[in-house]
Formats: sequence, structure tokens, C-alpha cells
Amino acid sequence: MRRSIATVSLSGTLEEKLRAAAAAGFDGVEVFENDLVASPLPPREVRAAAAELGLGIDLYQPFRDFEGVDDAGLERNLRRAEAKFELMLELGADTLLVCSNAAPAALGDDARAAAQLRHLAEAAAPYGVRIAYEALAWGRRVDTYEHSWRLVAEADHPSLGVCLDSFHILSKGGDPAGIRAIPGAKIFFLQLADAPYMAMDLLQWSRHYRCFPGQGAFDLTGFTRHVLAAGYTGPLSLEVFNDVFRAADPHRTAADAMRSLSVLEDALARERAAERVGGEPGADGARPRASLTRLPDPPDDAGYAFVEIAAQEGGGAERVRAVLAALGFSHTRDHRSKPVQLWSSGGVRLLLSSTDPRLGHTWDGDAAVTALGVEVADPERAAERAERLLAPTLPRRRDPAESRLNAVAAPDGTAVFFCPGRREGREWLADFGAEAVRDRHAGGDGAPLSAIDHVGLFQPFDHFDEASLFYRSVLGLTPDESLEVAAPDGLVRSRALADGGDGGLRIALNVSVLGRGAHSDAAGGAQHAAFACDDVFAAAEAMRAAGVAPLPIPDNYYDDLAARTDLAPAVRERMRANGILYDRSADGGEFFHFYTPMLDNRLFFEVVQRTGGYRGYGAANTAVRMAAHRAEQAR
Amino acid sequence: MRRSIATVSLSGTLEEKLRAAAAAGFDGVEVFENDLVASPLPPREVRAAAAELGLGIDLYQPFRDFEGVDDAGLERNLRRAEAKFELMLELGADTLLVCSNAAPAALGDDARAAAQLRHLAEAAAPYGVRIAYEALAWGRRVDTYEHSWRLVAEADHPSLGVCLDSFHILSKGGDPAGIRAIPGAKIFFLQLADAPYMAMDLLQWSRHYRCFPGQGAFDLTGFTRHVLAAGYTGPLSLEVFNDVFRAADPHRTAADAMRSLSVLEDALARERAAERVGGEPGADGARPRASLTRLPDPPDDAGYAFVEIAAQEGGGAERVRAVLAALGFSHTRDHRSKPVQLWSSGGVRLLLSSTDPRLGHTWDGDAAVTALGVEVADPERAAERAERLLAPTLPRRRDPAESRLNAVAAPDGTAVFFCPGRREGREWLADFGAEAVRDRHAGGDGAPLSAIDHVGLFQPFDHFDEASLFYRSVLGLTPDESLEVAAPDGLVRSRALADGGDGGLRIALNVSVLGRGAHSDAAGGAQHAAFACDDVFAAAEAMRAAGVAPLPIPDNYYDDLAARTDLAPAVRERMRANGILYDRSADGGEFFHFYTPMLDNRLFFEVVQRTGGYRGYGAANTAVRMAAHRAEQAR
Repeated sequence: MRRSIATVSLSGTLEEKLRAAAAAGFDGVEVFENDLVASPLPPREVRAAAAELGLGIDLYQPFRDFEGVDDAGLERNLRRAEAKFELMLELGADTLLVCSNAAPAALGDDARAAAQLRHLAEAAAPYGVRIAYEALAWGRRVDTYEHSWRLVAEADHPSLGVCLDSFHILSKGGDPAGIRAIPGAKIFFLQLADAPYMAMDLLQWSRHYRCFPGQGAFDLTGFTRHVLAAGYTGPLSLEVFNDVFRAADPHRTAADAMRSLSVLEDALARERAAERVGGEPGADGARPRASLTRLPDPPDDAGYAFVEIAAQEGGGAERVRAVLAALGFSHTRDHRSKPVQLWSSGGVRLLLSSTDPRLGHTWDGDAAVTALGVEVADPERAAERAERLLAPTLPRRRDPAESRLNAVAAPDGTAVFFCPGRREGREWLADFGAEAVRDRHAGGDGAPLSAIDHVGLFQPFDHFDEASLFYRSVLGLTPDESLEVAAPDGLVRSRALADGGDGGLRIALNVSVLGRGAHSDAAGGAQHAAFACDDVFAAAEAMRAAGVAPLPIPDNYYDDLAARTDLAPAVRERMRANGILYDRSADGGEFFHFYTPMLDNRLFFEVVQRTGGYRGYGAANTAVRMAAHRAEQAR
Repeated sequence: MRRSIATVSLSGTLEEKLRAAAAAGFDGVEVFENDLVASPLPPREVRAAAAELGLGIDLYQPFRDFEGVDDAGLERNLRRAEAKFELMLELGADTLLVCSNAAPAALGDDARAAAQLRHLAEAAAPYGVRIAYEALAWGRRVDTYEHSWRLVAEADHPSLGVCLDSFHILSKGGDPAGIRAIPGAKIFFLQLADAPYMAMDLLQWSRHYRCFPGQGAFDLTGFTRHVLAAGYTGPLSLEVFNDVFRAADPHRTAADAMRSLSVLEDALARERAAERVGGEPGADGARPRASLTRLPDPPDDAGYAFVEIAAQEGGGAERVRAVLAALGFSHTRDHRSKPVQLWSSGGVRLLLSSTDPRLGHTWDGDAAVTALGVEVADPERAAERAERLLAPTLPRRRDPAESRLNAVAAPDGTAVFFCPGRREGREWLADFGAEAVRDRHAGGDGAPLSAIDHVGLFQPFDHFDEASLFYRSVLGLTPDESLEVAAPDGLVRSRALADGGDGGLRIALNVSVLGRGAHSDAAGGAQHAAFACDDVFAAAEAMRAAGVAPLPIPDNYYDDLAARTDLAPAVRERMRANGILYDRSADGGEFFHFYTPMLDNRLFFEVVQRTGGYRGYGAANTAVRMAAHRAEQAR
């Protein structure tokens, strides 16, 4: 299907917006009137600039407060409309979005409103302009798509149809199934926007918090399914008012937008394929069918191959090694050609590197998680899917004899390597020497760690929603709800993504709610890897015995725990002695976890033990952890 | 009255919060449980640290989901409470905030809830602890103060009273007049918070957007009046959950908080004085009367004495002079002892300086508005009021023969000078040489400017609400509603403050909604001075004739103006030729205005003409202005 984006979804000047939309591969744009009014380019030059970039101008918008007015008002509004039709001729736009009258004075007379819309369509026809009438969720008299369609049907003019906007319909809990009753040819335009659930004024919600499909809480796949079933074959167009996108790099935002539409189309294409296979009825045979583009299948049965940490030799690397050793890791192999060490404990493999996996040069920052190795059954397919989702691919310099690992860069800069999994022989391991390395960092006596439980990644402020969609779509993960944590210097938003299986992929994304403080872009924000084990007490005690004390947790925490839980005093005291924190889920699952001190400013490790199907990440304890790390760093 | 602040209102560790509260002059704090739990200080040491700082611990909070449970739940909750009573003994806190049960399972049986609260009070009494029961706005069964008071009255125990929180009452449109029916001695605690009106979920509104009294839309003076009339004599305590305050310097926030309470008490003291004079009935004579502290009177009849601009000689100063000359200003005098020039046009005086008025040293930044000279009838009184409102006073190095100008620093760093006004002889002008300076920047031929219409000041992200309260309280201004403008690189929030009179003080405060882009703290943000005139067309044409073209406004703007207004074509074309923008108010008042180019990156001037009582600032055109300045700077 044709893909469009409204210029209001992107930051910058109109020219910058057009360039960004074209670079991301969009076919067209909706020109937002304010962007044109503020532009030094006359409409004819905007048209030429768009054409040169391969973009059509699919819609001009918005035209407000037209219908349901008195006769004098109609005359004024038709004069106003004529000026816009002239402009659209210059601009090369053939569809005008008319949104339902939101003025307090709008009249509630349907026959009058329909007649006035017909007047407008008659006036538009000589210009070759189509009127797409949209019900705003906060329209004064017309605020549902059913109502807008009734008026359009009553007006009955070939130049008049409806515009459907997912936000206006889904934000009010409207049932999109009724869209199937509208003839597809009378749906002149389709605007798609998602949003997180927020119990707030519709107008404010719409103007500030819309996001791209797949980034919010609405079912955009289901919504679009109904629109396609109606026989709509026009553009899928994104109209997203979002405070963060308004201030972010428009090229990044446009790529994020395109990724969102690719995922949406893919989901619809898979549904259609499943219908064919299952013999379910497709769309009404009499109605046109939009062609849908499918992506390669998402990875299945994915898991962590490794987590790569970069640290400076002579800087943070020594501290990282000391703590890994205390956690029971052993330095077991060295890469054949690169300055990369493999550290293992039980089923957990970490790579410790002194280079940046994205740029290849020597790492010169604080120690950080720089790459995730993901085991997938078909790495080639996973990489192809990532590329189709506009993930920047990373050049991987390697010796001819080494395994080929496809890698892409996530929005937060983390490299994601697609590795053949266990069943495929884990060939990447052969890039490391076969012999166990013996050095002073041999593993301790603790029970081995069983898996990488999750990885916590700091996110740049502008790219949190983008990252969530990226990891979700590229790796086939499911996002949890967002949570907020009160860090000592401001709120931090956290969103986890997981593949649902035990021992699979779990990633927690963290961002400062206001982009300030220790989790600001400037500060870099903390990252961590969490390791699963079967005996968190033994792990903590072994780490301490090996010379690294767990992050100290205040006594006040344990006193509060005593007041609000029935943990046995002996258990509580053992937790207190080892800085072990506790959480419990409603179904009785338990979570015990401790942290290492902060290593080299922004990296730490966590060891966790889950019982009884606990699925969370101990978010209730995060503020305590943050305060403890801050207190330790202040010392 | 005693003044308190909840630790949750401030950022940092518990110790940092205590230090900030003490430094701002608070008498006590509410200790928020999460702050204590995350603190390495045991309760006894927190008490000692507070005592050393002169702070009492006036409340421990919150204790949740206590009442309206089954018998087993009561037993668990009483055990939980006993642990907190023990803790409070250590902490030296004698009042516990118990907020109404918000759990879905809470029972709606008032007799049971009252009996359980009585149980709690009986358990608390031996510890010397008082229970302050508060109705959360989102309580499951108890969500109004009237209901919480009915339960407290029914439970009837000397250790049980209510806690009143202005947000929980006013956010739901509750009528605080009924508070007068509660005996003052049964109001155990008073929490004050303001908030902007937001049509959103009460919990989210409360947790993210509270602000200090006078910064939001609620009538905190009226609310507190009722509480005092009931006979309450306890602390005025601020409990403000605010995303920005959570991430800001706690010392700044605490001073802002204290300023807010000073203004509130002053307003109440003035009401009481007016009642005495007018013979109106005061509080019920049988009830105690809190003592209220009054501030010196706010400035009246204030106006601009001058606006001071600092620019680098050899840098931006020459460009500023050239544009001022083109606007019709003349360099008329020089300061007797400092490198400061006085430029005048009609009734407008600007100071052009090469030093920083706050620090005294040579100005080394881009040209900027660094000081506002405010004419007031009694500068000494205005300065005393500002000091009482914790405005940092600026040392003013001067020669003994020069006039003494009191100055304070606003939250945005702007110096505010209090100058004797016209009736007082404008003695500060005598610090400048009496002779007119003759140089190549003599004024042009345009009509003289009549006044400084307003000043637009960029605000640091953390201090927007603080600045609004500062200018309002120190200068006696009235704030308008906040507006949002879509700048090319993100939303900008704008709030104007004015003294209501014509030709008086008007200040527009601007801040990036997300703290990013051209209005971020890092970029510095634009500032401007706007001058009033009687013929904006003549002013624009004279400026152009003098060699400075007005900021070019796109033709598209004028085409849109033609579509949506009935301005005569000749007028529109004259506007187009001179970059003059237009706005109209609902009552027919009109606003014509043009801008200079950006001078030295972040300073510009505006010339405005108001007709028919137009009271705004042309905010509808601000996005166009911003895009035009951006386009010009990109060239």
C-alpha cells in the first residue's frame, strides 16, 4: 500500500520534513497548513521540491469549523475554502481534510450540515479537489465516524467522502467494526496514530501523546483490518502529534514511522495469508483488495548468545574483570583476531572487549554494554528482517576464516548480533581459541549462573518509543506496560520487552522522564546485565567471599520489609547481610536479587532468583537501588 | 504559622532534602516513607540531623490501605502500624498520615471503617502518635473530606483527627467552605498544593503536576481561609509531587516553596486586616487564631524605567546599535562611571552595557537582556518585599555620588532594579551625563516609540513555575494562562504576566516544553524587547529606510490571512511588504507587529501597535516568527 506521513509528525522546516520523509521511503505526505504558512516556499515550489524527492502530496489539512453554521457563516467559509482550493492547485494536492466543527457555536442540524458539505463538494469539484470529512473526537456536534459517514452519505456527492483517523475513533472506545459498512471508495483518506492509554482530556491526549502504530496501546492492526475490509486502497498515512517527535531528528522519526507501517502491513499480510490457509472468508469479493507487503518471519526461539561489554584497558576493564571473577565467571577463551575475551559461568557468556563493536576503534568511554548477541534459528533471515525494518546494518570486519555474524545498530546504539544457536552448532564460538585461558581471574566457588536473565539499557531521551518498537519488531518481543521510578534526581521511565518464553530474551529500556539528571543523554545513564541463578544467597555470599561486597542496602529497607511481609526473620537477616532485595507478585511468585557496586560510573551487574513464575523485574526496589548506587558513588 | 514541606517535594537524598528545607527557612518537614527507606541513615540519625538543622519532623507519611478491611486484614494492618509507631518514636515524629484505602477490595462499611480507625488510634496513643486520616481523591470508598471527617467523628478518639490536602479537595471541585464545620483541634494536619487545571486522571494529575500555591489554578488563599476559620493552628505544609521539582536543585525548589507560603500568608493577613477595618466578622471567637506574617506592600503603579542589554564591544554591540538607530533610538547619554550607554526613543529608554549587571565583569556572551529597570513609587519597600520573598539581592558597586538602586536576581538570572519613578524625579537618570551624545547612531526619522510594551525572556527549564511566581509576587503582576507554541524544533510554553494597567509592566516567559532545541538551557533561548508605537507601518518603513529590513514573513502567511480575515487588500499588501503580522481578539481589538532580524544569535526586537483594547501578544504568530528567524539564521 502507499505510505504517507503528515508533516506535523516531524520536526524542522517544511523542506526538512519532506527530505526526511523521502529518505525513509515514504510515497507521500500530508501537508499541515501551519507548516506551509511558515514556509518561505510558495506552494508551487513545495510541489516541485516534493516531486523531486519522489513524494506526492496526498492531503492538505486541516480545514476547520466549516459545517453546521448559519448562512452568513457558510458564505464566509466557502470563500475561505475557495482560497484553499486555489492553493491546492498550486500545491498539487487533490484531497482536503475537513474536520468536524469544534466551535461552541456549531449548530446541531444534520440536514443543514449535510447540505453545507454538499455545497463545499460542489465548490471543490471544478478544482479537482476531493473533500475528506473527519469526525474529531471532540467535535461539537459530530464526533464519531458513524455520524460523519451519515452526513457524507446524505450529502451524496462524488467529491465528498470520509477521512478516518484511528485516534479519534479508538480514543473514545469506538467500535471500528462498523467501518466495514462504509463503501471503500467513500473512504477518501486513512490516518493512523497509536497512543498510550491515558485518562485525560481527548484534545490534550491527541495533541501531545500520539505515537506510531505499535508504540501505544491501541489495536491498530484490528482497526486497519476493518478499513481494508471496507475496500479502502488509499494511502496508510501517519498523523502523529507527539511532543518528543516534534523536538527530535526528523530523519530518525521518519525511519521509526516507516518501521511502524512495515510492521503493521506485515501483520495484516500474515492475517490474510492465515485466512487463505484456513479457508476463512476474506474481504467481500466485490470490494477491492489492497496489496500488502510481508516481512521475513521474526526470530523464533531466540535467546542470549552473549552480552558484550567494552571497557578501557588501563581504565575500567580491570574492575570489570575483578567483579566478573567474584561473580564466578572465568576468562575461558580469547578471540582469534580481536582484543575480545570470552568469560563464562555456567550457561552465561560475556564478551569483554576493548573496542567499539560499531565503529571498530578502541573504546574510550566508561565501561558499557555495547552489544547483544542473539541466538536465532536463522540468522540470515533475522538480519534480512532487520534490514527491511530500516535497522542500520553494521560493517563487520573479520578474517575470512571467521564466522559471519550479521549485526545491526539499535536506536540506543547497541549492536545486535544475530548468531546461529545451539542447534546450529554455535559456530561463532569457534572464533575464540579452543583452549581455556588460565589467568588470575579464575572463577570462584559459587554456584554457576544459569542464564542472562535480562539486560537493562539506558535510552536516549528522543528515542525511547523508537527503541521499544525496534526491539519489539526486529527481535519479535512483546512489550510490558511502562513503569515510572522515582530516582533521587527525577523520574525514570522503564519498559521491559520479553519473548514470553523462560530463558529467552528480556530487555528493560530506561529513560529519564524529563531527559535530565543521571539518566540524561548528557550523563549517559546506567546499564546492567542481570544473571539468573538457583541460589541467590549462595551467589551473594560467594561474591563477598571473593572480595566484592554486594551493593549495600539500607537497614531501613529491611525494617520496612519486616513491617509489610511475612518473610521469616532468619531469611530477612540473611538478605540484610547480603544486600538482597525482595519482590512478590500477586500470584505469589517471588523475586530475590542483589546488585554489584557501580563499575566505572555507569555499568553494574545484578543476580536474580525467580520462584513461582514471578515475571517482573523488581521495579518496586529500583528507587532503593538507585539511591544506594548514588550514595556509594558520592562517597 | 509554622511552615513545613514534604520531602517528596524536593530532589536528592533525604539528607540533601533536609538541608535544602532548612536553608530556605522551613520549620519542619513531612518525611516521605520512600525517602526514609532509601536512606542509609537510621531514623534516630535522621531525627538528629533534622534537629541540628532546626527542623522538626511534623509528619510521617503515608500509611496506606488501612481501614475498611476484614478482621484478618485489620490484624495484619495493625501489626504493620505498630512497626511504624516504633519507627516514629526513633524518628521523633508524632503524627502519622493515614490515607483512605484505595485498594479495589476496600469494604464500603462506614461503621467498620470508623471502628478500625479507632483501633488504630488506640494502638497509636501509647506511642504518643496521632493519626491524621486523609481522604484521597481516588480513595475506593472514602474520597471526600466530609466523609473522612464523618468517620473520624464517629470513631471519636483523641489520637484521631483528619488531614486536609488542598489538592484532594479542590481537584474534584469540592467546596472547602464545609471545613469550617470541623473543630480546628480535630484538623491534625494541613497539606497545601496547587495545580494547573488539567482534564486528566486524578492520580496522574496529582503525582506529576502539583505545584506550589500561586503557581497553579486553584484558590489556595480561599481554601486556607476556611481551614484557619475552623481554628487550625498547625503547620502550613507543602506536599507537591512535580516531575520538574523532582529533577531540579532542591535548594532552588525549597526557596520557591517558601516564597509561595510567604505570599499565601501575606494574602491571608491582608484579608484579616481588611476584615478588622471593615468591621466584618473574623473567625469564631471561641476558636484559636493562627498568627499570620505580612509582607511589605507590593509595588503599585509600576512601569519600565529601562531595559538593559549587554553586548560585547567588538562583538554584538555594534549590530545592536545599528538596529536601535534604525528603530529610531538615539544614543543620548553615557553613564558617568560605567561602560553603559543610554539610548532613547520617545518614552523608551534602553541601556546598552558591556558588563554583566549581576557579576560586574565584562560581558562575554551573545547580546542579551540582562536587567529590567522597574519604576516604583517606593523602591526601598519594593526591595524589602523582594528580600522577604527570598530574592537574591545583587551587590551594586557604585560611586558614592551615584543614586542607590536596589537590585535582585530573578530565577532566570535577569537583574531587576527598583528605580524611583517619574514622580520621584527619576534620580537614576542623573547617573548619566546630562548632555546628549552625538555620534553616528543618531535616531532616524520614524515616529518615536511610545513605551516598552513587553519583554520576552527565555527561562531555564527547571525554573519556569518559580519564575512565574517570582515575577508575580515580587512585582505584583497577574499571570495569564500558559500557551504552547509549535516552534520548528519543539513546543515552547509561554506565560505572560502583566500588572493590568496600560503602559505598565508586561513580561512574557518562554520555556521549551521538553527542555530541548533552540529554547533549551544549552542553547540559551531567545529574548526580546517589544516597543509600542502609534503607527506600526511608519515604524517598519522608517526602519527599512534606515537600512534594516524587518524580519521577512512568508507570502504564504499573507495568503492565509487573505483567506481568513477581511483585512483590506491594500492594508494586507502594506503588511506583506513590511513583514507585519496580525492578530485579532474576540472583542475586535487588533494587534499589528513586526520583528527585527535576530541580533547576535538570541536577541531581537519587536514593534507593536495595539488597537481596541487588544490584550494579547500575537501568540498565534509566534510559530511563524520562530520559523522565519530560523530560516534567516540558517542562511
